[in-house]
Amino acid sequence: MAVYTHLGAEDLAELIAHYDVGDLVSAKGIAEGVSNSNWLIETTRSRYILTMYERRIELGDLPYFLGLLDHLSAKGCPVPRTIHDRSGAAFRMESGKAVALIEFLPGVSPTHPTPDQARSVGKVLAQLHIASQDFTLNRANTMGFADNLAVLEQCGEGGLASIHPDLPAMIAPARAAAAIDLADLPQANIHADLFPDNVLMLGDKVTGLIDFYFACTGAMALDLATTHAAWCFAGDGGYRENVGSALMAGYESARQLEPRERDLLAEIAKGVALRFVTSRAEDWLDTPDDALVTRKDPMQFAKRWQFYNQHGNSVFR
Amino acid sequence: MAVYTHLGAEDLAELIAHYDVGDLVSAKGIAEGVSNSNWLIETTRSRYILTMYERRIELGDLPYFLGLLDHLSAKGCPVPRTIHDRSGAAFRMESGKAVALIEFLPGVSPTHPTPDQARSVGKVLAQLHIASQDFTLNRANTMGFADNLAVLEQCGEGGLASIHPDLPAMIAPARAAAAIDLADLPQANIHADLFPDNVLMLGDKVTGLIDFYFACTGAMALDLATTHAAWCFAGDGGYRENVGSALMAGYESARQLEPRERDLLAEIAKGVALRFVTSRAEDWLDTPDDALVTRKDPMQFAKRWQFYNQHGNSVFR
Repeated sequence: MAVYTHLGAEDLAELIAHYDVGDLVSAKGIAEGVSNSNWLIETTRSRYILTMYERRIELGDLPYFLGLLDHLSAKGCPVPRTIHDRSGAAFRMESGKAVALIEFLPGVSPTHPTPDQARSVGKVLAQLHIASQDFTLNRANTMGFADNLAVLEQCGEGGLASIHPDLPAMIAPARAAAAIDLADLPQANIHADLFPDNVLMLGDKVTGLIDFYFACTGAMALDLATTHAAWCFAGDGGYRENVGSALMAGYESARQLEPRERDLLAEIAKGVALRFVTSRAEDWLDTPDDALVTRKDPMQFAKRWQFYNQHGNSVFR
Repeated sequence: MAVYTHLGAEDLAELIAHYDVGDLVSAKGIAEGVSNSNWLIETTRSRYILTMYERRIELGDLPYFLGLLDHLSAKGCPVPRTIHDRSGAAFRMESGKAVALIEFLPGVSPTHPTPDQARSVGKVLAQLHIASQDFTLNRANTMGFADNLAVLEQCGEGGLASIHPDLPAMIAPARAAAAIDLADLPQANIHADLFPDNVLMLGDKVTGLIDFYFACTGAMALDLATTHAAWCFAGDGGYRENVGSALMAGYESARQLEPRERDLLAEIAKGVALRFVTSRAEDWLDTPDDALVTRKDPMQFAKRWQFYNQHGNSVFR
């Protein structure tokens, strides 16, 4: 959550003038996105999210991310359209940084998802997978098993132990596991980071999937396992079985899993859990203790790794 | 700029249900306010700002701040109304903290105000002073000369020199000055912190004065001098004479200054400059060098003190 760059009212008005969206009426820096600055913009015509890409995002990936939004939106998926400027460009450069104007969608993100909400999200995720298969651009997954191991190596045993003394032992078996080959599983363009924070809902209805900046070309089962790991555990770490089975049922109501996908789900979910242990450990060690930001605890996903390891594919039945 | 407290969608929906404002449609944490968390809330009926008071604000002051908004709004001043809950309360307690729901107003804050914008702000400030005189509550100014000296004492010579080696010598004459007695000047309930950040505008029109959390009962000339010190200098520190004279002309188009007010303006502006040197020095020394927040440079207002000291009341002619 941050606004890293100050854009004054005059800068914003000048920027907005490059789009056919009416005149600037209001602009509020919003506390969303970890690698971007975001403003909620209101014009005489409508409302928009203005995103400035600050770090972690390769400029060369923007046509993929923004093009995927347009592709999915045109197919009726609840994702925000990219607003193109008067010359047709999906993003512009401003103060040396890329900025994009994106449709504002209503809805709020659930903190304690209900089974009905999980069912809706599962169904929309499957619809996204079906709709994204003929998107013509591709992007490799940069959060694979080997990438995670390299980051854990950099954190070091001492670094991991400084987060929690049990952490190195908890993830030792995960690090020793072999990578699963997902290349043979059915592929699509996937969201790859569908935490509740990235879903807008009104009641049980999904009004928006947002923050596609981990989207990539990859196994649909990976996206489903990521969503499962992100949605189906309580604050105390306990598995919420009714949420998990609703998510699976919702997904399969729109797209039936193949047996070879189903067989690998627990192994994939363990890989997902290791990914979030890794990214959180890296952030944790990069963030000063007294910084005014909330660090996410890597232990949460170390426990989820243990859960998937212990229960295997029975979780997904 | 911050959102210090996480309020989930479910918490927000439950909170909003205590008000007769329709159902929650959207909620975005916004990066405004230094001592509060703020959300831009949309309901099926309208838009609102939800403020959670985190620190620096005495609960006992809230009836003054929120009552003043209602008083001014009822008299047609462009300030946001407080939305009262179903029981009539102007604020509620949530997770042990006070929260208030406030009308959303359109407009953006100028970064480089034009003379026409300054003229409008001057006029609205005078109208606010006229409208606030019969507000029945009172609040003492807690940012007086003696308060500032006490804070500077705490910062210490070494602390001030650590900010800039010239700072102690620059403000030594300011510290040695005698306090001016403002009690005999015409009084009202004043905003006392009217930086451009706290003014929303559409073009040259003032659509909102916001952030009344320094408001107090005090000399109207103090409010005008504060606004002058906050609006009339360029980023490089240079005095913008055309902005300054437009601000004064705008103010006097709605309320003529008395000679005794005019005679003291430069001395009052020096007191104002010392106030911001003080508060910024305190914040600077309280904020770790590597914290993810932008510290405001106390030197800026040390230079404005020198400017007012050098030019005296000729600035305000």
